[in-house]
Amino acid sequence: MAHFPDNPGFTGLMRMVRLEADIHDLEVEGEIPVALDGAFYRVHPDPQFPPKYADDQFFNGDGMVSQFRFKDGKVDWRQRYAQTDKWKLERAAGKALFGAYRNPLTDDPSVAGRIRGTANTNVLVHAGKLLAMKEDSPCLIMDAETLATDGYTDFGGDLPISAFTAHPKIDTETGHFCGFGYALDGPLTKACEYFEIDAGGKVVRRVPFEVPHYTMLHDFGITADYAVFNVSPYMSSWEQLEKVEPHFKYDPALPFYLGVLRRDGTAPIRWFKAEPSFCGCHVMNAFQDGTKVHFDLPVSKNNSLFFFPDVHGHPFDREAGKTYLTRLTVDMAANSDDLTEMQQIGAMPGEFPRIDDRMAGKPYRHGWMCTYAFDKPYEGPPGPFVGVINSLTHFDLATGKETVWWAGPQCGIQEPAFIPRAPDAPEGDGYLVALVDNHITNYSELCIFEALKLDAGPIARAKLPVRLRQGLHGNWADASRFHVAEEAE
Amino acid sequence: MAHFPDNPGFTGLMRMVRLEADIHDLEVEGEIPVALDGAFYRVHPDPQFPPKYADDQFFNGDGMVSQFRFKDGKVDWRQRYAQTDKWKLERAAGKALFGAYRNPLTDDPSVAGRIRGTANTNVLVHAGKLLAMKEDSPCLIMDAETLATDGYTDFGGDLPISAFTAHPKIDTETGHFCGFGYALDGPLTKACEYFEIDAGGKVVRRVPFEVPHYTMLHDFGITADYAVFNVSPYMSSWEQLEKVEPHFKYDPALPFYLGVLRRDGTAPIRWFKAEPSFCGCHVMNAFQDGTKVHFDLPVSKNNSLFFFPDVHGHPFDREAGKTYLTRLTVDMAANSDDLTEMQQIGAMPGEFPRIDDRMAGKPYRHGWMCTYAFDKPYEGPPGPFVGVINSLTHFDLATGKETVWWAGPQCGIQEPAFIPRAPDAPEGDGYLVALVDNHITNYSELCIFEALKLDAGPIARAKLPVRLRQGLHGNWADASRFHVAEEAE
Repeated sequence: MAHFPDNPGFTGLMRMVRLEADIHDLEVEGEIPVALDGAFYRVHPDPQFPPKYADDQFFNGDGMVSQFRFKDGKVDWRQRYAQTDKWKLERAAGKALFGAYRNPLTDDPSVAGRIRGTANTNVLVHAGKLLAMKEDSPCLIMDAETLATDGYTDFGGDLPISAFTAHPKIDTETGHFCGFGYALDGPLTKACEYFEIDAGGKVVRRVPFEVPHYTMLHDFGITADYAVFNVSPYMSSWEQLEKVEPHFKYDPALPFYLGVLRRDGTAPIRWFKAEPSFCGCHVMNAFQDGTKVHFDLPVSKNNSLFFFPDVHGHPFDREAGKTYLTRLTVDMAANSDDLTEMQQIGAMPGEFPRIDDRMAGKPYRHGWMCTYAFDKPYEGPPGPFVGVINSLTHFDLATGKETVWWAGPQCGIQEPAFIPRAPDAPEGDGYLVALVDNHITNYSELCIFEALKLDAGPIARAKLPVRLRQGLHGNWADASRFHVAEEAE
Repeated sequence: MAHFPDNPGFTGLMRMVRLEADIHDLEVEGEIPVALDGAFYRVHPDPQFPPKYADDQFFNGDGMVSQFRFKDGKVDWRQRYAQTDKWKLERAAGKALFGAYRNPLTDDPSVAGRIRGTANTNVLVHAGKLLAMKEDSPCLIMDAETLATDGYTDFGGDLPISAFTAHPKIDTETGHFCGFGYALDGPLTKACEYFEIDAGGKVVRRVPFEVPHYTMLHDFGITADYAVFNVSPYMSSWEQLEKVEPHFKYDPALPFYLGVLRRDGTAPIRWFKAEPSFCGCHVMNAFQDGTKVHFDLPVSKNNSLFFFPDVHGHPFDREAGKTYLTRLTVDMAANSDDLTEMQQIGAMPGEFPRIDDRMAGKPYRHGWMCTYAFDKPYEGPPGPFVGVINSLTHFDLATGKETVWWAGPQCGIQEPAFIPRAPDAPEGDGYLVALVDNHITNYSELCIFEALKLDAGPIARAKLPVRLRQGLHGNWADASRFHVAEEAE
């Protein structure tokens, strides 16, 4: 029977949900915009079985995908496991077979060589399918309506790579899905590849490159011409995997790198280096301005990911781990590969940056992030990061104005997503959706805001009878994208 | 969209769940007995759509059936709506069409004459099917494994009655399902029928009878020869239905009746009367001793059901509404129809009495009830009845000993069910299962006890990530009963 570890990774705020569920016509406070016809998808790690290691990382849980289906002013909720190969093998065995996070040395011999992915990091509809992604594995395909799992894909043999990013960008100019894979020659290798998949699901670009050292290549940005990769000072080694230590560790002696690669592959990648380094995980956006490339993301002076410990054993520094929205800039016309131009562009600390996704790769004005309002009271259990994400902030990058909505003393907030009011609405004209989790009552609500009026509070709250586990990433898809492939340009 | 009434009937402790769900291999504390192979079923009212009336009674919610499937020391959880005709008609319409509790005058004209049942009161496996029952309607058939709904049945035309009790008894001597229906000539009529269905699903007995006045004929008891009906002083009238008042009201001027009917129909029913009256809703057990018939149930001096108001408008009296386990006795050899012999046989106030169901209709020793431990602290929102059901009590009727387990200051308890350790185990040798709901964290746990060692606390807790709504009744079924009809004797 399922005896989970009795430690903070699996209890309290981190309690499992493991719930495959349907609720028709969610209870709502306020009014859901009647014109919305589509779905908000998000995913959280939720171990199907007790882990082989009691200190198993949160990121090792099986992907549980939620769908909030909006139509005619109503919201239906559906939640299903991403039935990865790992999930199926373990369901058949009735127990965990795969071991520690990204450590194949810890697996049951019966699953040697099998895909270890959990599909727990991001979900996005492209070419009529829901893609469930985990950066250490191929792309898993699910049905956008039923959430039934089709299985892993190599895109008809056109993308035979072992790892597929969980942070793709859609270039709305071309309709292309832009992504990458890393560690493609096997665990801890430097081999990477940038690729693009058109709106019909056909792989149209593949550009190999290498990272300066093996690291976590978690997110990236696109511009009109470039794919831009942020490398924070995290490392790994077979030695630490053999000792069943965390896959990644923080090494402040490593530089921070920004890699800039022509999307058309006509030039080798160029790595810009910053020393001493800093940390930045998720990307808000990138864009070009003449020969300059701007790259916006929340960064911290020191390690921001407490679960990846310092190589020297220094304790996690909550103050130095706070991340602030920052613009890094490199000039492709410059001779130097030093990354020297960086400017803090946001005052509220936070993470999970989002934009109006139609602006990916373009000059843009509006961004949103989960933020820490440290001046507000909090009544729940402590959060695992630098604090509890208790607010959403809108960053108007044209005026510098920041507009904050605080969720209240009992609540945490998960990553938001933007929904345009109409396909041709101006940038930022639309809604923001985000799960708000009450840490005392253990109920979650999907809150819908006017995206440019966060301080007015939610215009509607679609209420769940359960508190969803802390999730990672998600996206909105109009219903028109559920099945029929969009026309490629 | 689903805007539910913002009142205590639909918020706080009474918040809806509306969740159709599956969890494979529930998280467990403790150890589930490995030999258990079967399922515990229970049901709660859970409105699919906001009610037509904001003060709608709890009992009017659509039946949501839970299945806790035990096998190999693991527990799977499944929950589905009983898809009654009402549920289907309303799902198609996207809103409530049926009106107030047992008041067809309040229905949308489009559903005039359709079966109003919600199948929300009890679930029990018989003849290879799960029967979902509501006393105002025919019997709904569901699949015992999948919880898929087949629909209403009249047992091959052999039981064409409009109403089928939610409190059947299984006579283990014959394998017969013993039940009854009331108001069979239409709402508020006195026509009733007692019936038996054999273990293969064939109707083998039908005995018509009449109640002294139209009332709520909610539960009953069987003995070897008799079916015994308790009538508490509740009444109804077309006048109150026309005014959309509660269907039942409490009238202390009415007598309490005990009706005793030969199961073989060889004699007319005999009504024993007690004045002044008292109230008793659910039956623990009944049995014969020579010419005497004993009938055990919790009774209160006054109305115990706060939602059925006093005809004279007197407020609900929490003290006089407390119910204590009581033995009523009548002598079938006596000339008098006065019911004069009654004896309190339990000290702990409570309701939801249960037995080892193999003892139904026989002299027995062990009973269990949900009880009120009024001396214990409580931290949650107030309960709607005379208090919050916070404990389980085992009544040893041979010794008079009562053994109490208190669930703690944040918890309420739902009706338990007994599971024999083995088919031929002695009476009481087995387990008790009951949902324990935390009213602060909003998590429920299915707790499993050694039935005769309640004070040792649960031997296992199967944990849900949600708090189930207050339920009504349920039963255990061994897996052998899921599909194949038992052999009739």
